[in-house]
Amino acid sequence: MDSSNRHHSNPPSADSKLVEQEERRNDIGFGTKLTDAHSRLINKDGTFNIARINSSLWDRLNIYNRLITMSWGQFFSWLLVAYLFTNTLFAGIYMLAGADTLKGVDDRVLNGPFWKCFFFSSQTLTTVGYGHISPDSFLTSCIAAFESMIGLLAFALATGLLYARFSRPVAHVRFSQIAVVAPYLDVNGWMFRIINTRANQLIDLSITVSLSRVEPKPDGALTRKYYGLNLERSKVTFFPTNWTLVHPITSESPLFGCTPKDLEESDSEFLISFQAMDDTFAQGVHTRYSYRYNEIRWGHKFRPMFNGNQQGVVTLDLDKLDDTEEAALN
Amino acid sequence: MDSSNRHHSNPPSADSKLVEQEERRNDIGFGTKLTDAHSRLINKDGTFNIARINSSLWDRLNIYNRLITMSWGQFFSWLLVAYLFTNTLFAGIYMLAGADTLKGVDDRVLNGPFWKCFFFSSQTLTTVGYGHISPDSFLTSCIAAFESMIGLLAFALATGLLYARFSRPVAHVRFSQIAVVAPYLDVNGWMFRIINTRANQLIDLSITVSLSRVEPKPDGALTRKYYGLNLERSKVTFFPTNWTLVHPITSESPLFGCTPKDLEESDSEFLISFQAMDDTFAQGVHTRYSYRYNEIRWGHKFRPMFNGNQQGVVTLDLDKLDDTEEAALN
Amino acid sequence: MDSSNRHHSNPPSADSKLVEQEERRNDIGFGTKLTDAHSRLINKDGTFNIARINSSLWDRLNIYNRLITMSWGQFFSWLLVAYLFTNTLFAGIYMLAGADTLKGVDDRVLNGPFWKCFFFSSQTLTTVGYGHISPDSFLTSCIAAFESMIGLLAFALATGLLYARFSRPVAHVRFSQIAVVAPYLDVNGWMFRIINTRANQLIDLSITVSLSRVEPKPDGALTRKYYGLNLERSKVTFFPTNWTLVHPITSESPLFGCTPKDLEESDSEFLISFQAMDDTFAQGVHTRYSYRYNEIRWGHKFRPMFNGNQQGVVTLDLDKLDDTEEAALN
Amino acid sequence: MDSSNRHHSNPPSADSKLVEQEERRNDIGFGTKLTDAHSRLINKDGTFNIARINSSLWDRLNIYNRLITMSWGQFFSWLLVAYLFTNTLFAGIYMLAGADTLKGVDDRVLNGPFWKCFFFSSQTLTTVGYGHISPDSFLTSCIAAFESMIGLLAFALATGLLYARFSRPVAHVRFSQIAVVAPYLDVNGWMFRIINTRANQLIDLSITVSLSRVEPKPDGALTRKYYGLNLERSKVTFFPTNWTLVHPITSESPLFGCTPKDLEESDSEFLISFQAMDDTFAQGVHTRYSYRYNEIRWGHKFRPMFNGNQQGVVTLDLDKLDDTEEAALN
Repeated sequence: MDSSNRHHSNPPSADSKLVEQEERRNDIGFGTKLTDAHSRLINKDGTFNIARINSSLWDRLNIYNRLITMSWGQFFSWLLVAYLFTNTLFAGIYMLAGADTLKGVDDRVLNGPFWKCFFFSSQTLTTVGYGHISPDSFLTSCIAAFESMIGLLAFALATGLLYARFSRPVAHVRFSQIAVVAPYLDVNGWMFRIINTRANQLIDLSITVSLSRVEPKPDGALTRKYYGLNLERSKVTFFPTNWTLVHPITSESPLFGCTPKDLEESDSEFLISFQAMDDTFAQGVHTRYSYRYNEIRWGHKFRPMFNGNQQGVVTLDLDKLDDTEEAALN
Repeated sequence: MDSSNRHHSNPPSADSKLVEQEERRNDIGFGTKLTDAHSRLINKDGTFNIARINSSLWDRLNIYNRLITMSWGQFFSWLLVAYLFTNTLFAGIYMLAGADTLKGVDDRVLNGPFWKCFFFSSQTLTTVGYGHISPDSFLTSCIAAFESMIGLLAFALATGLLYARFSRPVAHVRFSQIAVVAPYLDVNGWMFRIINTRANQLIDLSITVSLSRVEPKPDGALTRKYYGLNLERSKVTFFPTNWTLVHPITSESPLFGCTPKDLEESDSEFLISFQAMDDTFAQGVHTRYSYRYNEIRWGHKFRPMFNGNQQGVVTLDLDKLDDTEEAALN
Repeated sequence: MDSSNRHHSNPPSADSKLVEQEERRNDIGFGTKLTDAHSRLINKDGTFNIARINSSLWDRLNIYNRLITMSWGQFFSWLLVAYLFTNTLFAGIYMLAGADTLKGVDDRVLNGPFWKCFFFSSQTLTTVGYGHISPDSFLTSCIAAFESMIGLLAFALATGLLYARFSRPVAHVRFSQIAVVAPYLDVNGWMFRIINTRANQLIDLSITVSLSRVEPKPDGALTRKYYGLNLERSKVTFFPTNWTLVHPITSESPLFGCTPKDLEESDSEFLISFQAMDDTFAQGVHTRYSYRYNEIRWGHKFRPMFNGNQQGVVTLDLDKLDDTEEAALN
Repeated sequence: MDSSNRHHSNPPSADSKLVEQEERRNDIGFGTKLTDAHSRLINKDGTFNIARINSSLWDRLNIYNRLITMSWGQFFSWLLVAYLFTNTLFAGIYMLAGADTLKGVDDRVLNGPFWKCFFFSSQTLTTVGYGHISPDSFLTSCIAAFESMIGLLAFALATGLLYARFSRPVAHVRFSQIAVVAPYLDVNGWMFRIINTRANQLIDLSITVSLSRVEPKPDGALTRKYYGLNLERSKVTFFPTNWTLVHPITSESPLFGCTPKDLEESDSEFLISFQAMDDTFAQGVHTRYSYRYNEIRWGHKFRPMFNGNQQGVVTLDLDKLDDTEEAALN
């Protein structure tokens, strides 16, 4: 990282005005070609609104990532399906090897030979091994020895996945569903607010906001441009209550003099990048959010979220996150 | 992070003095509204003194975080309760399916059918599976196959939780219980000290101290303000012994000319944020601490913690952390 | 890290021009002596083209690292080999202790005493323990007690390895196979491009490019020199699509005025260091790549990778990563 | 971290020369009181040469840290001891509950009732559960149900410990056993060198060197002082070969004009702090080293470690790390 600073500290490209100009352009990674006015850049869940074709099967499957990010319900369903499938598969193999080489309980008690094989398989896979059914031939013993190894590895995998799901750093931050343009000191400000929904402490928070909008080039072609928005405060050390982020609309702001109609016509989207440290595990957490032009309330301000002071403890009401009231703009 | 620098490097808000002023205000995340003089901001265990209402059940439970941060005694008690509960549950299910379909040991030996079911359940859940009790019907076999899977997953979970508890980065740093105002060179200094209670090495330590106090606004309303306190030394590379942190009370200090009574009346609290790297795992560790006005001893200084040099090794006596003696202020 | 800045902020070595000059030389760690024109510095898989002799056996084995970085096929093969080997070993031990002390199934059913011992071993190692074969002497019981402990530890190890393999941070970034020198604004640029092959989001990307080439010293001896190449943009926050990295060949560029022949004669290699944050686990990912002089197409430019806009979603065609077309240089 | 910069950017303590002077003093965390001339500050294994008394038992045990950092031999010995101890304990409990309630194999076959209990315990603890011995009373079943739970937790713990030991970031860096003072360009330099002993790639290396020596204060009392030593190069991106660290002894160096005798009399020690990123896991690795005055060879220089170029691959001979030869100083 330091090397990068070292490399680029010399004044860049002094002999080409165009190069210099391009280097100064704010681009946060979307490029200039996404000018379709009808789709957002960042979806509400923080993913990007871009599809890919011709990726390899393995990249498309992306198994580990999916198993980690799917819901708990889906995850346990997949585990159950895998368990039933594996047992069915091995039951079939034992059938081929001869169900009568699994000695012990009478088949009829367990609904016939297939189910005897199935239950023997489950007792082998989980290594419970009661022994009331046991392999009584060389071939069946081999299969069982292999299956018990598979079983242990499979549950080793499940252990790792469970741990990975639990320990994954996730920012439990809720963004207000709308942003507002409200009076702010002697000017106006574009504002949104966030709360930490968990009792986990987040520290060293840092937020950046970019405005993305489509502008005509000198030749009339549309191009998407990006502007970093200056914030009243973009970093805080602690995050015990709610935090209202304010971009003051001063004369330097790209929003200066803008009307709601301007934002709509330029397909404006406010891109927010959030990062912090989860104190429980000292892990970094990141998330993204975006507000489009139609998610901004002009001439509204946020109502306080504090619910008075009860028994010496300040109380924060999370249901009030989206509460606003009208406020005349400056 | 770098992008943030890039965005905000332009001089902010030159056309509004109020905006500029607000941007310069030190706010570490508590806001200006916590002006109740009877409660502290940071509790002695490093948590914040703020309650939340209307969070979702799931957020309130925050299961993983609780299981990780509860004491070892509580943790093992919960494991035992969960184990007994699950076995009782499955014992009930086996009873419904018919205790007589679990073949083997005579019920009377194990205090009747319920306990036979209970012990069979425990042998299935832990996959010990002696086999002296075994499922002798289709239905019971199905339940047992399911229970053994649940058992493996449950212990997979326990494995992950145990590892997470053990490997969680915790700063084993002890703060002196009181801070002092003592003579320091040719001025006075506000001081506290810390030790590393473990043999783990902490490296690259960094500490910030903020003073929070309530001040009247021009209109007489109370508002909470924050001041970063300059430290004699806020970063060190190594932490082999104790470390006394000193804020020199020079004329630039917000404490300059303050009396104990001033601190009390302004509900002063010194907020400390500590971070370091635990060398064993190269993990960052963070902690917080605070001293309120009534936890400061004026005109006292810390006594050395070194206990002489025994057999060529310098010895540090951890019991002396809070030892102070009177010292006339400059 | 901060301490390093503190230490070295004073102007260095003002009394020795040679020292000062050396301190300013860009060296990214390869030194000046690798001047062989026939081998590259960074291999295509990101490793370095340097061998070591006389490292210790343990360092050469580097077991953990190998088990983590080998392919999944190799990994499972090694697990299987280890499982078979351990069982064979313990089968031998049980044979020595007396195969007839393992009571239960008739030897002949399982192809003789060795296989009875082998299967008993596998049932002990995996803790499946059916019990249709069981240790019927003090000595055999001791061995079995030991083996079951080994078994659990071995599978504990396998659990850890599986988790480590899965959770290892890997940058799934594909570099274009060739770099190009193409017209860029009013000058030319040296360019390559990259895509993220996975749906995982990479954020806070940062890239540095160094040019390494062999130059004659005043005394005629060859020495390898390194130049940091200025990039149009070396950091982006998001990486939703492809990213074309551009080094503008302005008059400050070490490539200014260079011909393909110059690059070949100086054994030029472009060394690329990539780092980003994988958003799923907030883990840093790093990778390296290099382009040698013969992997650069002069007078070609990259074709766009966007495949139109289908159903409101912009589509990226990963197969077009290496597509170039001729373009007259400025 | 940024907040710290914000807090302390104002010029410090302008009204007290002594405070200002103290703030400028380099102190890397050892303080000024360690002036014993006969013991080093940093031991050869990177630990600090400082003892503690009166720490709590729990802090002194520091179990997790010990289990992670002890050698593999010790670790497995402890596991074995714990396994035998637990089995002996539970064997005793089963004896108290009545060895005859464990039904199955004849006691005499297993050397009497204690060993029957012992082996039953081991089969329960590891969940192998053959069932040729099984609990045949309510009390014994209860104990066995508890023991099998303990067993699973214990091996869960072992799984976590094994993973933690394996995945712990360790810098496999070897420092030359001696440092040298050798001619360097037109001055002299204090030098040592390091190699990476593993094939793991280390990237983004950074090294700081401090000189610690005892100096008399104006009042004659001895005090330990610290100086950051300027390095020819303190950061590199890649570390494929060896790296010679050079502190040029220019007129600004605290070593300027020093003789070996000066270093001995001032009990000089060179403290080295190393950090890098292990590329396999993108984990930070840290280590420390120190050279005392008697580990420096004056008028020697390091011999190259390259062993020619074999089959197009540059070869590094690790045995040559400590090779020096005489060289006349400037």
